[in-house]
Amino acid sequence: MKLPNKVTIKEVGPRDGLQNESQQVGTDNKTAWINRLSESGLSYIEVTSFVHPKWIPQLADAKEVLSSIKRKPGVTYAALVPNRRGLERALEGNVDEVSVFMSASETHNKKNINKTIADTLPVLKEVVQDAKAAGKSVRGYLSTVIACPHEGLIEPERVKAIAGELREMGIEELSLGETIGVAVPSQVERLLETLLPDFSEKFLAMHFHDTRGTALANVWKSLEMGITTFDSALGGLGGCPYAKGAAGNVATEDLLYMLGAAGIETGVSMDKLIEAGSYMESVLGKPMNSRQMEVYRKVEVE
Amino acid sequence: MKLPNKVTIKEVGPRDGLQNESQQVGTDNKTAWINRLSESGLSYIEVTSFVHPKWIPQLADAKEVLSSIKRKPGVTYAALVPNRRGLERALEGNVDEVSVFMSASETHNKKNINKTIADTLPVLKEVVQDAKAAGKSVRGYLSTVIACPHEGLIEPERVKAIAGELREMGIEELSLGETIGVAVPSQVERLLETLLPDFSEKFLAMHFHDTRGTALANVWKSLEMGITTFDSALGGLGGCPYAKGAAGNVATEDLLYMLGAAGIETGVSMDKLIEAGSYMESVLGKPMNSRQMEVYRKVEVE
Repeated sequence: MKLPNKVTIKEVGPRDGLQNESQQVGTDNKTAWINRLSESGLSYIEVTSFVHPKWIPQLADAKEVLSSIKRKPGVTYAALVPNRRGLERALEGNVDEVSVFMSASETHNKKNINKTIADTLPVLKEVVQDAKAAGKSVRGYLSTVIACPHEGLIEPERVKAIAGELREMGIEELSLGETIGVAVPSQVERLLETLLPDFSEKFLAMHFHDTRGTALANVWKSLEMGITTFDSALGGLGGCPYAKGAAGNVATEDLLYMLGAAGIETGVSMDKLIEAGSYMESVLGKPMNSRQMEVYRKVEVE
Repeated sequence: MKLPNKVTIKEVGPRDGLQNESQQVGTDNKTAWINRLSESGLSYIEVTSFVHPKWIPQLADAKEVLSSIKRKPGVTYAALVPNRRGLERALEGNVDEVSVFMSASETHNKKNINKTIADTLPVLKEVVQDAKAAGKSVRGYLSTVIACPHEGLIEPERVKAIAGELREMGIEELSLGETIGVAVPSQVERLLETLLPDFSEKFLAMHFHDTRGTALANVWKSLEMGITTFDSALGGLGGCPYAKGAAGNVATEDLLYMLGAAGIETGVSMDKLIEAGSYMESVLGKPMNSRQMEVYRKVEVE
C-alpha cells in the first residue's frame, strides 16, 4: 500500500481544544503555550476563534492572543471566524489565514450556528470574499461528515454537495470533521471514495475526534487514500459543546508517533511537543489525554 | 476493501490483564468477573496462567479459579502453561485448551522464560504432545513479533521461522503478540505479507497491545489482510512485566465497537461487556482504560 512521504499536521489545540475546556486559561498561558507549539516544527497553528465570546467565553481574548504570540517565520497562524464581524476582528489581530465553518448535518448546523445550511452558505461566502480581498487565505471546516449526534449517519453525497459549494466560494482547503469521534475506517473509505473523484487529495484535510478510539485507524485509512493533511490537538484536548459525549481531537503527539514510525515526514519534534504538553498539563493541573504523554509520564516516574 | 463478516474475539483479560495488576484480586472476584464475561457472548476466555506463582503471584490461584468458574456451554476456557508441571496442574483443573508461549526475540525470551529460543522449543514440544494426548487443543503465543524492548525491530523472517516450528509441533492456532504496543499498520502489513503465503489466515490470530494508541489501526490492517481472530482484554488491562513501559492489551470493548460499527459480527454484547468492566472497576477501585468505558462513565454522569 502506497503511503505519502510527507504529511502536514495542523494543530488546532489552542482553538478546538481549549474552546471545550471548562477551566478558564489565562491569555499569558495561552500565548506561552502557542509559542512552545511554534518551536516544535509545526507549520500551522489555529490559535483562536472569533466566535462571539457569549458562545465561547474561553476564547474571549482572541485578538489579544493573536497579537501577543511570537510569530515564527514559516508558521501560519490561523483563526476561526463565523461572520464578517469576526473577520474584522481577526484582521485587526493580523491573522495569517481564517477558517469558516459549517456542518453537513442540518440539525447540528442549526444548533451550532443557529441557521439552516441554506442560510449559512451566503454568510460564509461574504466572509471568504472579504478575507480574500484582504489578502488572506481561507480554510473551510465541514463538521459531522460521517455522523451527527442528532441525525445519525450522514450520506457522503450530502457532504460532497456542500463541499462543492464551499470550493465554489474560493476556499483553499476543506477540513472534513468527524466531529463526534464515532467513525471507523470503512466509513472514512466510503466518504473519500465519494469525494476523491471530484476533489483533489491536496484540497482535503481530515479532522478526527477520538471518542471511540478509532481516530488513528481512520487517519491510516485516509493516508492510504492519499490524504496528506490532518488536524489534531496537543494532548487530545477538545470535544464539541454541541455534541454530547464527544471526546477530544486525536492527539497531535499520537498522530506524530504513528506517522514517524511509518517513516512519514512531518518536520515536527516529538520532544518539543511533549514539552508543550507538559506545560499545558501544569497550566490545567491535570494529565493530558494521549498515549505519548502517558508513556512520557511513566518513563519520568521510573 | 474486503473485510471478514465474522470475527472471533479471544478475551485474555483474566490472564494477560490481571498478571500485570499490582493489586491482588481475590479468587472470588476473579470468578465473578469471568462468569460475567461468560455471559457477554464471548466464545473464548483465557482465565489464568499456570506459570509458577513465584513469577506471577497474582495468578497463584490458577487451579482454584479454573475449578470455581461457572462453565457456559460453547465457551472455551483456556489457560497458559509454561511446561509439563504447569500442564499437569491445568489438566487437574480441567482446562479446555492450553496455550504455550515463547518470544521471537532471543533477549525477551531469555528474560521472560529464562531459556534460549533453541532450548525453549523442545520444552513446548513436550507440552503440546502431552496436552494433545490428554485430548486438549493447544494454542501458541509468539511475542515481540514486531519489536522487542531490548533488540528493537524483529525481522518478519525470524517470526516466520519460529511460527513454522510451532506449527510443526501441532498447535491449532498461533497468536502473534505485538507485546510492547509500538507497531504501526505498515509493520503489521509487512509481517503478514511474509507469513500469509505459508500460513492460513485461520491459523493466525493477532494480539495487540496499545501503548502508542495504534492497536485498533493495526487490527484494521489485519482485518483487511484476512485475519479473523483477535486477542483483547476487557478494560485494556495488562502490560508486560518484562517489557518496561508497555501498556495494556487493546480493550475488548474498543475492539468490539470498531468491529460492530464496521458491520462485522462477533456475537458479543457491548452492554454485558460494560457491565463486566464496571464490576472490575469496582473491584480494582479505579477506572479502566478504554474509550467505551470512558463514554459509558460520561453518559452515566450526564
